[in-house]
Amino acid sequence: MLNGLSEGELTPREEVLRRIDALRKRMVEHGLNYGIIIQNVDMYYFAGTLQKGLLFIPIEGEPLLFIERTLERARYESPIDVIPIRKDRDVREIIDGKGILKGQGGMELDVVPVTLFERWKNILGLGMVKDISPLIRDVRMIKSPFEIKQIKKSGEIITRVFEKGREIIKEGMSEMEIGSLLELEGRKAGHQGFLRMRGLNQEMMSTYVTHGISGVIQSHGDVPISGVGVTHAIAQGPSLNRVRKGVPVLIDYGGGYNGYITDETRPYVIGEMKDIFKKAYDVAREIVDETLSVLKEGVNGTEIFDMALKKAKKARMEEYFMGYGPTKVSFIGHGLGLEINELPVITPRHNIPLKEGMVFAFEPKFVIPGEGAIGIEIDIIVRKEKAERVTDFPLDVVYI
Amino acid sequence: MLNGLSEGELTPREEVLRRIDALRKRMVEHGLNYGIIIQNVDMYYFAGTLQKGLLFIPIEGEPLLFIERTLERARYESPIDVIPIRKDRDVREIIDGKGILKGQGGMELDVVPVTLFERWKNILGLGMVKDISPLIRDVRMIKSPFEIKQIKKSGEIITRVFEKGREIIKEGMSEMEIGSLLELEGRKAGHQGFLRMRGLNQEMMSTYVTHGISGVIQSHGDVPISGVGVTHAIAQGPSLNRVRKGVPVLIDYGGGYNGYITDETRPYVIGEMKDIFKKAYDVAREIVDETLSVLKEGVNGTEIFDMALKKAKKARMEEYFMGYGPTKVSFIGHGLGLEINELPVITPRHNIPLKEGMVFAFEPKFVIPGEGAIGIEIDIIVRKEKAERVTDFPLDVVYI
Repeated sequence: MLNGLSEGELTPREEVLRRIDALRKRMVEHGLNYGIIIQNVDMYYFAGTLQKGLLFIPIEGEPLLFIERTLERARYESPIDVIPIRKDRDVREIIDGKGILKGQGGMELDVVPVTLFERWKNILGLGMVKDISPLIRDVRMIKSPFEIKQIKKSGEIITRVFEKGREIIKEGMSEMEIGSLLELEGRKAGHQGFLRMRGLNQEMMSTYVTHGISGVIQSHGDVPISGVGVTHAIAQGPSLNRVRKGVPVLIDYGGGYNGYITDETRPYVIGEMKDIFKKAYDVAREIVDETLSVLKEGVNGTEIFDMALKKAKKARMEEYFMGYGPTKVSFIGHGLGLEINELPVITPRHNIPLKEGMVFAFEPKFVIPGEGAIGIEIDIIVRKEKAERVTDFPLDVVYI
Repeated sequence: MLNGLSEGELTPREEVLRRIDALRKRMVEHGLNYGIIIQNVDMYYFAGTLQKGLLFIPIEGEPLLFIERTLERARYESPIDVIPIRKDRDVREIIDGKGILKGQGGMELDVVPVTLFERWKNILGLGMVKDISPLIRDVRMIKSPFEIKQIKKSGEIITRVFEKGREIIKEGMSEMEIGSLLELEGRKAGHQGFLRMRGLNQEMMSTYVTHGISGVIQSHGDVPISGVGVTHAIAQGPSLNRVRKGVPVLIDYGGGYNGYITDETRPYVIGEMKDIFKKAYDVAREIVDETLSVLKEGVNGTEIFDMALKKAKKARMEEYFMGYGPTKVSFIGHGLGLEINELPVITPRHNIPLKEGMVFAFEPKFVIPGEGAIGIEIDIIVRKEKAERVTDFPLDVVYI
């Protein structure tokens, strides 16, 4: 149906069934008899389609994929049989007939708004409902070979965008001009159009370009460097700030392919880079190199953070490490997948032995007040023996 | 602080106070003693900043703007005094001391997720909380002169993008190529970067390009024409479909300036347009012309819809009007502002006498199976005597 129009590979049936089984296992462990999924990203993950509807997963028997709009797309996209509904209330009758609504269930209470939750409780006559999101996020944390294939394609978009950066960055250009040209390049390379971040008020752009002062001004997001944006109505992203020699232009770009997000950062400099940035870059580089050399299954996320912090301290750059002052962030890495804020989080607060198939962005960055920001961000796949990088774009400062 | 980096005009103090007073009036009418606002868009509307925090509006006394991150930006952006907090729990103590938490309050329950709501209920020891969103949406429905100024600037971006369309559209180009070049043009013209739509799973792009079959394939969104997208993980927007002669390329573009969204559509055609599209375009054009000639304060939204439907019926095009088959939509217009799904909705189901200062997108469109889609979308400001258009880009088919 979508041949020649759309290029994203459909999710194989075995893949969808494996994901649903992994969730069921966790549901049983947590005493849940059923899960109700309505958020589009989770639907896409568990049913292979994000057409409008509801996915009902009982701990036993077939999952029920109710679709209101559109049936055609859902049938084409999902390996699960589609049950057509005209309106949300139609779900009740079909579920009631199956006797699967007993006991305690789960819904995505971290994203489902209160009025919508009340509506579904009322329609289905639900009793006790727990938040199923921690279980979903836990399943989604380990990426399958199919997912890693999508992630690598997403990473190829980053590589192409970073290559383009070499060509286009010139003295006097605004961050906004650079950002929009890079965005064009990303779309040409097949970027899906936008990226997703889970939770209320979690918004993001594909392209962040910061330079000097705009790397230092912080904003609402829990990120080390957010950019200023062109309006305080957005308050992030490239600004009208113009590029000068010797100060890094930091390109933080998010690839997006078939739903899968990647997220890397490189510094570009016109001419000779100022010493303070060189010093900070060298520490970031050492942190990346050391992390890549030791990272494999079994290493704890907290160890990775500690090693990085130790290097920053040793170089007497701790003050600038992962932000400055009250807006310093407490993580150095975040899980990647269909959303940019997946698990694992690499932070001293999240004790987690890393496992084969986890994918995360690792971003040692330094914010130096009065000067600017610099750092590196790479995407890493955890493997049994040795971590694998998602892209192969070099880690060096790109001198122009 | 943001001089030279960011260009969005800050919200004046009188404007913010007027908005808060309008909400308070409605709160009193609905028996609410206080309102708690945490969604970023509503914060931006009522406080002039969307930095991370909480806005507490008691029915009497000063509004309290608690900000966690960043104080600097919030202080610069908001005309309300900022109360610094380190973490969400700090809000409790300050509010408790003022004795303003009595009786029934309101929160944005249409967007606040269940777990976040429970967290705030627990922190503040809240009793009965009602959904304050209908009151907020009602206040936001009438735009002030300050807002209309922002909306017109947003409309200027559309005009520039539509002009660019004349230059770039060529036979054989993909929708994606066209869309990404238009997006570049929009950013060069100062587009804020992304648009907002209220509610769970409500996602959108700035640029929709559809052509022939991609105008006919529907998706999950409640819109007449959504596009196919490059992946079913997004399932909307420009696709890889390539432009042929005689079939309209429909450009549906959303401007975004200082938070304010505009949304217009024009058809572009290479060579002579096929007759079926000419016929549909002529009906759409007549609907737009008639609507503009009668629309002013006091006219009901339902009358506008009825007039349009009557024209479609008379031309025997009712079957294709606002979609085809089960995915036909039931509205011909939607309110614009900081979100693209504001009030009023122009539909037979929403009985509303139009008022000076309402702004909406009006979009008579036809979806013809096997052929494609065509239509016009313009943004309209309701005035006492005669409706005003937001942009001045011509309504004609753009022949290339």
